[in-house]
Amino acid sequence: MLDALYKPKSVAIIGASTKEFSIGNRIIKNLLDFGFKGLIYPINPKADEVRGIRAYNSILDVPNEVDLAHVVIPNKFVPQAVEDCGKKGVKVAIINSAGFKEIGGEGILLEEQVVEKAREHSVRVFGPNCQGIINTSPDIRAYCNFTFTKPEEGCISIVAQSGGVGEVVNQRFSELGVGIRMYASNGNACDISIPEIIRYWGDDEETRVIVVHVENLSDPKEFMEAAKEVAVKKPILGMKTGRTKEGAKAVSSHTGGLAKVDIATELIFQKSGIVTFRDQEELCQAAVAFANQPVPKGKRVGVITNTGGPAIIAADELVEAGLEIPPLSSHAKKILKEKLYSAASINNPIDVLATGGAEHFRAALDVLMDEPQIDSIFINFVTPFFVDTDAISHEIVEVNKAQKKPIICNLMTDKRQWTKTIGMLKNGGIPCYSLPETAARALIAMTRYNDLKARKIGKAAIFNDVDREKARNIIQQAKKEAREFLSVEKVNNLLASYKIPVAKWRLVNNGVESLKAARMIGFPVVVKVDAESIVHKSDAGGIALNLKEKEVESTVKDMEKKFAPEKPRFFVQEFLSGGKELFMGAKAEEGLGHLILFGIGGIYVEILKDVAFGITPITASEAKEMLSSIKSYPLLAGFRGEKGVDQNILVEILQRVSQLVTDLPTIQEIDLNPIIAYEDRIVVVDARIRI
Amino acid sequence: MLDALYKPKSVAIIGASTKEFSIGNRIIKNLLDFGFKGLIYPINPKADEVRGIRAYNSILDVPNEVDLAHVVIPNKFVPQAVEDCGKKGVKVAIINSAGFKEIGGEGILLEEQVVEKAREHSVRVFGPNCQGIINTSPDIRAYCNFTFTKPEEGCISIVAQSGGVGEVVNQRFSELGVGIRMYASNGNACDISIPEIIRYWGDDEETRVIVVHVENLSDPKEFMEAAKEVAVKKPILGMKTGRTKEGAKAVSSHTGGLAKVDIATELIFQKSGIVTFRDQEELCQAAVAFANQPVPKGKRVGVITNTGGPAIIAADELVEAGLEIPPLSSHAKKILKEKLYSAASINNPIDVLATGGAEHFRAALDVLMDEPQIDSIFINFVTPFFVDTDAISHEIVEVNKAQKKPIICNLMTDKRQWTKTIGMLKNGGIPCYSLPETAARALIAMTRYNDLKARKIGKAAIFNDVDREKARNIIQQAKKEAREFLSVEKVNNLLASYKIPVAKWRLVNNGVESLKAARMIGFPVVVKVDAESIVHKSDAGGIALNLKEKEVESTVKDMEKKFAPEKPRFFVQEFLSGGKELFMGAKAEEGLGHLILFGIGGIYVEILKDVAFGITPITASEAKEMLSSIKSYPLLAGFRGEKGVDQNILVEILQRVSQLVTDLPTIQEIDLNPIIAYEDRIVVVDARIRI
Repeated sequence: MLDALYKPKSVAIIGASTKEFSIGNRIIKNLLDFGFKGLIYPINPKADEVRGIRAYNSILDVPNEVDLAHVVIPNKFVPQAVEDCGKKGVKVAIINSAGFKEIGGEGILLEEQVVEKAREHSVRVFGPNCQGIINTSPDIRAYCNFTFTKPEEGCISIVAQSGGVGEVVNQRFSELGVGIRMYASNGNACDISIPEIIRYWGDDEETRVIVVHVENLSDPKEFMEAAKEVAVKKPILGMKTGRTKEGAKAVSSHTGGLAKVDIATELIFQKSGIVTFRDQEELCQAAVAFANQPVPKGKRVGVITNTGGPAIIAADELVEAGLEIPPLSSHAKKILKEKLYSAASINNPIDVLATGGAEHFRAALDVLMDEPQIDSIFINFVTPFFVDTDAISHEIVEVNKAQKKPIICNLMTDKRQWTKTIGMLKNGGIPCYSLPETAARALIAMTRYNDLKARKIGKAAIFNDVDREKARNIIQQAKKEAREFLSVEKVNNLLASYKIPVAKWRLVNNGVESLKAARMIGFPVVVKVDAESIVHKSDAGGIALNLKEKEVESTVKDMEKKFAPEKPRFFVQEFLSGGKELFMGAKAEEGLGHLILFGIGGIYVEILKDVAFGITPITASEAKEMLSSIKSYPLLAGFRGEKGVDQNILVEILQRVSQLVTDLPTIQEIDLNPIIAYEDRIVVVDARIRI
Repeated sequence: MLDALYKPKSVAIIGASTKEFSIGNRIIKNLLDFGFKGLIYPINPKADEVRGIRAYNSILDVPNEVDLAHVVIPNKFVPQAVEDCGKKGVKVAIINSAGFKEIGGEGILLEEQVVEKAREHSVRVFGPNCQGIINTSPDIRAYCNFTFTKPEEGCISIVAQSGGVGEVVNQRFSELGVGIRMYASNGNACDISIPEIIRYWGDDEETRVIVVHVENLSDPKEFMEAAKEVAVKKPILGMKTGRTKEGAKAVSSHTGGLAKVDIATELIFQKSGIVTFRDQEELCQAAVAFANQPVPKGKRVGVITNTGGPAIIAADELVEAGLEIPPLSSHAKKILKEKLYSAASINNPIDVLATGGAEHFRAALDVLMDEPQIDSIFINFVTPFFVDTDAISHEIVEVNKAQKKPIICNLMTDKRQWTKTIGMLKNGGIPCYSLPETAARALIAMTRYNDLKARKIGKAAIFNDVDREKARNIIQQAKKEAREFLSVEKVNNLLASYKIPVAKWRLVNNGVESLKAARMIGFPVVVKVDAESIVHKSDAGGIALNLKEKEVESTVKDMEKKFAPEKPRFFVQEFLSGGKELFMGAKAEEGLGHLILFGIGGIYVEILKDVAFGITPITASEAKEMLSSIKSYPLLAGFRGEKGVDQNILVEILQRVSQLVTDLPTIQEIDLNPIIAYEDRIVVVDARIRI
């Protein structure tokens, strides 16, 4: 419960200052300017008052209870201040001071001390190195923050990891004339975290929309769980920044350059149902729609327009995003034919013409509200001087009162002249935009949220036919041997223990045994030399492909001679030809689990970067989605008469890999490459496992 | 010369009306409200005055010269009005009236009459079915238009095919507080065209930036030439709308669904050097930067910031668009180390810190202006309450006076409080944006314009070793035969006449001849039955591949029997194996020339839609760009030890195909598919030509 943070009855400022351009002064000014409903206690041993409010020597001297304290003093004094807060019974301390984890070294130690003191004295900490919070609620009016943009009251709550980004978003809403509910920028986040704040807003009835900005997630799993829990209740609009810098850190597997750090964040957003944006403007504009309108129940848009060109732009935008502008029922057309001008277009988009008045807009709105195959309404409204645009606004607002289907309006007007028309729409809760693209994208975002809410991810299957015990032993033994990569024998046994199909194989000591093994496997076979010291087998001449019965023994005997000093064994394996080369992988992601990768080998992965990603544990529907999301999917399904591959088995293998790394989290990386896939059989031919 | 249109000394309104909510009244109101500097002559046989201005019975009764006349009367009276204009010596008529080409049938005839009368009487026509023009020049102030948004004076000129889009763009500039220079929305464009207007603005010194919107081009070649001519002088920012509707019309070749109608427009924009946008907001925001700042000479950006998060967003955006944020010279770093706070970052981005004041910003600006490896400056400027932000603005404006390198500013502030800081920047010609993405994209657009200006397309090569005469004869003969598709013999001869390499071939009559032919070609060979009546050769069993010497005669003899009723001939062709399957194509595009297509066959074209397009005549550098622009280009260059193909020959063939269709424009479609490409040889194996 963060009530003490967001609904404080009293706020102390430890480090309150008489200097106008200091943070310890500004916070008090902000509280006063914003009309804080609680009590303010400046703490300053050298001043009697700050901004006309009586100051105290110490937080301990304050005569009444203190819910929340700002700490704005040099870093080294902060642990003591937190201790004092505890003694005083302060519930939350916002530590604005910097000089902690972000400076490294000594700062890290200092932050640890703060956390320790806070725990010891039951004080929750917000920050350090942070801006603070805002609550616009009329009975609170808490501007516990040193920035400067004063938001209107509204229903959008914003949490930003970067204070700069939070402030910019806050400013943009302010420019758009849109209010916010609560705000948080918690800097180093040593205690109160973004997930905790999201959960708090999930339960805050006045918060209709949550905006989240992150640069990196310190506790991705916790974030994902909190977001998932809240996103089913209300929309979370998210943005992750730092794509090019942090994103440059590549994974070490053969898919180098693919599994970037921020892919995990994107997947987390997706898996938890966050509506993701790559653009703050688009996010802010979408938030305005979410704040005012119900969420559409589907992707079918009814368009009403009184002008041509901008409607084309809106249609381009909607259709390209996968929304539909379906034809209307004959019943609907009949009504429109009666009620609109004869030259009007009674299809969807409905063109009421520039001369269309309030009764025409109303007729079109009523028809679309009644059409079962329409989920949302897009109005493209230019304000010609020869129609009564106020009357049109009135009808739009009237129809909107039922909140039956969302209405989005692209209002094309001169804002200096049509102030009444605009005011009526705005006060009536109609989100108005200046450009068709902007309006369309807001509706697209709302439709995307509905899709996210409606999707059924399901639960991850648990295969009980796996041999966990055996797998665990293999890993433990490998650890004892201090090997980074498992031996080929262990890899094959480990995969087999999770019923991940591998090509038939035997490990033998010499030419004679190899022939026996090959006879059991069936011809042709592959032979690979196996010794820890021989890393590049192929370059060393330690691999022979497509061997027939008469070639096996002599080939291995030659290798025995060649590699005698290495005392090798020989890996005899079924030789597979034809089929498609696929690959799968898993890679540990700190604090989260594993990323699962899938794709088609060769040019598709290396040049076209056509790879699908998932987060463990993946469900059957997620695995299917991974397959169908790659661009070269038609190759899996069968293309130009060529046969496809067994997708059900692939889906199962993806889930088994997911279960394997979930059960054995010490596995750092699995690389199944290639997997040879046929119409009725899928076989791992080569695999590497790093622990 | 469109001076009479844009700089009229007098304007008549034929159809001036006393009714307030009519267009014939509104235009007069607009002229008056906008402060038109010339004379206004309402023409209305039933009124003595309109809006207090003396009205005349007929344009012929006006006592003085009339430069420009609005025509706002029912369509059927318009031809006569144009004739009257001619008699009066009116130079240009803006026909606002609708009911012409856009309604089809009778309207088309009426528009033709208008054009005829106009030619006969030397009147230029703007429209019909149009809005009109605006000129904000202080000595003109012509608002010859019935819309309502009154722009400020500026240096951006806008021409829009859709009046709705034009008005929306006009409104957006107005909201952004940015002025425009001239405006045009010419509706049906029966005479004065968008290319003519673009050329006029190319010569208008006060126009710094041209904004163009098109839905479809009636004269694409003329448009391309005009745009090319002007775009080297000043930036043209273009937007094409109607992507999903018109774009759905696909070409008929095997690449069905690829060569959409709007690909031509995109290519025209690209070839003529127009900076293309898919978003009006982005276009308008970029126009603001172009209007105020010099164009960067390269893609290397110097970033100055006083906050973290938004700078990351800007960097993401810039780097993803291909711009660079290069390190600074040691000289530069030395200066910055001296002049900035010790905690400041002296790398690029330069972080002057939130506490950084005017002298720090100035130091960073001076350093970046002097750094030779920096082409443009991006300022990320938040306005903390504890620094003198006006002083910072002052320094930015001072440095900007030299107009040495473009400066773009992401100004993060509360617009209600920091009015002075903002005003100083705006008046000083610094484009300010509210979000880092918006600012970054404006800079990206400017950099793109520089790239477009700097590129060297070259001239299309003319190969003199081609046999034009022979090619012309082949086409003429095929026309006489009234064939839609050329016979295989003609196709091969035609390609050979332009030295486009085809696989060796002979056309023979029977088995005996086929063996002889095959011996001259070399084995193995392909044999195809050749008769106009056999369309699906493969299905009919009329194709035999990979024939060795002993198989040829008997195979053809079997075919002779099988197809005896069709009296066929036999096409014997060199059989090629290995190599890469490529395809090229050409498709006539009305009023433009031909589109040229290129790609790699199979999945790359059919699933990944990985195709490059060009417009004839293509130059060597354009052909090279086509090759390297496909995603699967590494396959051409050589991938994973596999050999690549001879790109020089490919570039030459693309140019020869371009020359062929340019010389013989009756060719509707060429489809070279497959082309087999080796490291040292490229051969067309199958081709279709439609005339």
